[in-house]
Amino acid sequence: MRFELITKDKNTRARRGRLHTAHGVIETPIFMPVGTQATVKSLTPEQLRDLQVEILLCNSYHLFLRPGHESVARLGGLHKFMGWNRPILTDSGGYQVFSLSSLRDVSEDGVRFRSHLDGSTHFLSPELAIDVQQTLGSDIMMILDDCLAYPADHFAAERSMKRSLAWADRCNRHWIATGQNDERQKHSALLGIVQGSIYGDLRRESAERLGAMDFPGYAIGGLAVGEPKPLMYEIIEQVEPYLPEEKPRYLMGVGTPADLAEGVARGVDMFDCVMPTRHARNGWLFTKSGHIVIKHSKYKDDPEPIDASCGCIVCRTYSRAYLRHLFLAGEILSSVLNTIHNLYFYLDTIRRIRQFIEFHHFNEFLTETRRMGAH
Amino acid sequence: MRFELITKDKNTRARRGRLHTAHGVIETPIFMPVGTQATVKSLTPEQLRDLQVEILLCNSYHLFLRPGHESVARLGGLHKFMGWNRPILTDSGGYQVFSLSSLRDVSEDGVRFRSHLDGSTHFLSPELAIDVQQTLGSDIMMILDDCLAYPADHFAAERSMKRSLAWADRCNRHWIATGQNDERQKHSALLGIVQGSIYGDLRRESAERLGAMDFPGYAIGGLAVGEPKPLMYEIIEQVEPYLPEEKPRYLMGVGTPADLAEGVARGVDMFDCVMPTRHARNGWLFTKSGHIVIKHSKYKDDPEPIDASCGCIVCRTYSRAYLRHLFLAGEILSSVLNTIHNLYFYLDTIRRIRQFIEFHHFNEFLTETRRMGAH
Repeated sequence: MRFELITKDKNTRARRGRLHTAHGVIETPIFMPVGTQATVKSLTPEQLRDLQVEILLCNSYHLFLRPGHESVARLGGLHKFMGWNRPILTDSGGYQVFSLSSLRDVSEDGVRFRSHLDGSTHFLSPELAIDVQQTLGSDIMMILDDCLAYPADHFAAERSMKRSLAWADRCNRHWIATGQNDERQKHSALLGIVQGSIYGDLRRESAERLGAMDFPGYAIGGLAVGEPKPLMYEIIEQVEPYLPEEKPRYLMGVGTPADLAEGVARGVDMFDCVMPTRHARNGWLFTKSGHIVIKHSKYKDDPEPIDASCGCIVCRTYSRAYLRHLFLAGEILSSVLNTIHNLYFYLDTIRRIRQFIEFHHFNEFLTETRRMGAH
Repeated sequence: MRFELITKDKNTRARRGRLHTAHGVIETPIFMPVGTQATVKSLTPEQLRDLQVEILLCNSYHLFLRPGHESVARLGGLHKFMGWNRPILTDSGGYQVFSLSSLRDVSEDGVRFRSHLDGSTHFLSPELAIDVQQTLGSDIMMILDDCLAYPADHFAAERSMKRSLAWADRCNRHWIATGQNDERQKHSALLGIVQGSIYGDLRRESAERLGAMDFPGYAIGGLAVGEPKPLMYEIIEQVEPYLPEEKPRYLMGVGTPADLAEGVARGVDMFDCVMPTRHARNGWLFTKSGHIVIKHSKYKDDPEPIDASCGCIVCRTYSRAYLRHLFLAGEILSSVLNTIHNLYFYLDTIRRIRQFIEFHHFNEFLTETRRMGAH
């Protein structure tokens, strides 16, 4: 993987870049839709391509448990398995182990957990987290980190951050050792993840020590876990100076459309979030003037599209009344069409952000986003 | 609506024809996918067009109750509402009233019933059944008929058949009276429905008296309601001689792929059935050598497509293992992909039937279908 920094905004930390991977080129800033179980819920790969989705995030934890990473490998790898020939980023499984499974038992070696599917016991080590992702055939992999709940005191946060550092080092060594003869590794990448909860000193130490390990890119983890928005933005600002400029930065699990703008303004290049797809299934739809809840009775006879200024196929074809009808009738097509619209909204937002950066007017986009106060 | 009889098979009653409607031309024999609530469950209109679907069936009963036919009309009619610009056939609502609602009270005037959605009481008369379908903007409408459960004795069947005849006459008069100044009516059509349960004398009387009303096409109703298959085929054979050759014949709610072949062999031109779409959502997939149940553990690591001889996008892209994974994971995409495959299978079957008729080899197709004994 190679990162190309194209231009930097004059007024903010915003950057415009390009990521070269084995499965194609990604423009940054980028929003990555989430395809947890080897599918972006309700959409075909063809619909994703029509939406101009450039890269997907898939969850190692889910695929490790079902159908199993080795099964996916026997079927030709994750890309072939799910019919997606563009880049895929996989997480390490760490976050899901900490958020979904029960009976976690964390030691320096790794984490023992029970599957949320069938209660079976598994042990995830830093080395296994790499093996799983390599076996899946991921383009961009993540180190296994120790994910802390919010709030956490300084002592717990420091212990967790240091454990994550040790695991990052083991992941990195294992990745290099096992991939030396692997042609794919030349084109894939393993990213480090900065931890340290809300503590500036810990975040700085994490960033600096990960920097010494020379990862090809860095994520900021442990945010969007319940802390106030201003605090999240502040932590990004604290971490950013310690991240090497020539490498991509990825803010994990974030966020609202406004969060994308705020993250970009603070130097972030990559985002992922289930919000557009999950909200879609719940009938919560994004528009440039705020969200609408499609089941609301006021849309019963509304012939207008979700957002008259939106160029997506859903807004060009269907009325709010039809979308409300589908939602109330419990029709699968409701999830499909709402997901298409919400993903288009996110991808359109990120494309506009890119343009504003290119023309050095990103400040205006940011100001407008803040003025709207929506999302 | 105009029906064009192109050719007749030399060895069977099979016919090859063409229906001209306000929303385009349909080749016959035709299979009509069911879009009950103004959506073919899980598919976008674009996916239906990719499948070369020519005409949809929508259910008046469902649309009458939700969102309401007048609401649909205010939104530009059913075609615009659901984003489908090809022909639509609507049923009268009669079958659903008899099969879905509770507390039915049938009189000569019509049928009083309770909504299966909220228990509200409604009264459906022959005239209202026509008004609902005209208000929706249907291309091919059906008369309201009295739908009888199977088995029924001769007395009950005769009473029901005669009531259906009286309703057919009222539907026809109302359709003509209300549509005299309606430009659309020149291009739309109202079809009669032959009833009479399993009794040849009643079926004949129904067909002859409906024939005297000069409908532009005739359906055979009251079949596929639990009677043995040979009996269903026998009744079609009994009715067919009394249906005018120059008008299309529609076998309602039928059936399996083999039923399509058997129906065509007995002179039927049109079919509809929820089987391909409903079975898809349950993971029951059609293949040329019988069906497969995709959740079966033997497909866990199966890299083969559902049917190697199938040309659909699903079979050209995904393994049985992936489709099994989606089904077990409860993913929406499971319903989407399975529906695409099963509909393709039905539409491909009907296209092959057309070709065999054109080349006067339909006998061979029928023999092969019977030899397979599948479906």
